[in-house]
Amino acid sequence: MVQAQTTAALLIIGNEILSGRTQDRNIAFLGKALNECGVRMLEVRVVPDIACEIIDALNTLREKFDYVFTTGGIGPTHDDITAQSVADAFGVALEKHEEAFSLLEEFYAEREQEFNEARQKMAYIPHGARLIANPVTTAPGFNLENVYVMAGVPKIMQGMFEGFRHELKGGSKMVSKSVMAMIRESEIAKMLEECETRYVEAGLEIGSYPQMKDGVLSTCVVLRCLDAEVVEKSYQDVVQWLGSSGFEFMDEL
Amino acid sequence: MVQAQTTAALLIIGNEILSGRTQDRNIAFLGKALNECGVRMLEVRVVPDIACEIIDALNTLREKFDYVFTTGGIGPTHDDITAQSVADAFGVALEKHEEAFSLLEEFYAEREQEFNEARQKMAYIPHGARLIANPVTTAPGFNLENVYVMAGVPKIMQGMFEGFRHELKGGSKMVSKSVMAMIRESEIAKMLEECETRYVEAGLEIGSYPQMKDGVLSTCVVLRCLDAEVVEKSYQDVVQWLGSSGFEFMDEL
Repeated sequence: MVQAQTTAALLIIGNEILSGRTQDRNIAFLGKALNECGVRMLEVRVVPDIACEIIDALNTLREKFDYVFTTGGIGPTHDDITAQSVADAFGVALEKHEEAFSLLEEFYAEREQEFNEARQKMAYIPHGARLIANPVTTAPGFNLENVYVMAGVPKIMQGMFEGFRHELKGGSKMVSKSVMAMIRESEIAKMLEECETRYVEAGLEIGSYPQMKDGVLSTCVVLRCLDAEVVEKSYQDVVQWLGSSGFEFMDEL
Repeated sequence: MVQAQTTAALLIIGNEILSGRTQDRNIAFLGKALNECGVRMLEVRVVPDIACEIIDALNTLREKFDYVFTTGGIGPTHDDITAQSVADAFGVALEKHEEAFSLLEEFYAEREQEFNEARQKMAYIPHGARLIANPVTTAPGFNLENVYVMAGVPKIMQGMFEGFRHELKGGSKMVSKSVMAMIRESEIAKMLEECETRYVEAGLEIGSYPQMKDGVLSTCVVLRCLDAEVVEKSYQDVVQWLGSSGFEFMDEL
């Protein structure tokens, strides 16, 4: 019997990711961090800084998944159009948030810098949204229904996520165990398929990932299931098969 | 007058990217490499190893963009379901490709390894597709209409891409120039917006990317346009404004 899962999607907003200028670091962080909360990330989309693309993608994803996380486009410049796009996706107004305005006003006053129009823009969030604290640079993200809007800079995004992760209502956590086998994956394909079939009703998923290092091919076998006992049993099956077939292997750290 | 662009999407197939186990390296590579071919990557989707998700995403993307590139899921194991999913998306049969079969047969014969069922699976591609050579591990990708199916391992994907990049029919190449300004982006937001407005009919796009290094905030301004002259003019405008306002800046390498 496969248990119900809490699901999520990540929507990355930013031309700089699509052009290859910036190497994404948010997918892997969120994939892992969400799993620790019992939330499984099942889709990622990267879209450019174009309002209709953001709105379409957000409306599709927030309907399909329990949670949607967005990163990017909440700064002070003209290319930061996420807040307005989220407001449009929900059909609500973008409005000045008094608490955000005060926080930013104070932040710039302390630094004796002008609280100019561009900076004030960061205090405008969709009607009905609540703030997500930004422990790094103050300018807040926001949460509206099942959508969490965060900054794109990894350090800031991670700081925001740490602030609300305890609120996420996760299901069971995916448990995983990995074996690195010194063998081409095509030599263990049949065994892996049989192993997955054996536990498929319990929800076991086996991933097989070839790796090449210094010209040597190896295969990382990842066993994943909501049921830790199934992971352990299938792990023993795989390890026993590898051992009795005379193949070298080690637990992946 | 904004020139026509050739557009593309990348579809990444793989639970290992979504779980955070594997750090993606293909988005940035393809974003840059495609731009050099005059093709602009305008969307990325990452989907799990689930047939209906792959099929839905592929059919949406191949309709919307000039080219679709996929990575991942073409190996010999049970979780490699890309070839079958692409065949299903196009409504054609998956069939044994004689040339691919011979290539693989020879590859394993040379290594005195059994050409087993799992390995033979890699010779099955959708009806009507042609092979994409794999200079690293032989098992080929394939091309069907505007869809290019490649391996997920970055080195192999890059090797496949280099083999067919000359065939891509690109439009004009996006030209870009970057300035790193030792200033918070909120201090130059207004100037950047005015600058973009000045050249918007020529298709100028200005990106503003805050960076933090050793606690110091700076802003990278990226000027992008199909017209190199517009990039140069807008660059001079930005640099002149920064200089006359007394801000430090440097060309980004």
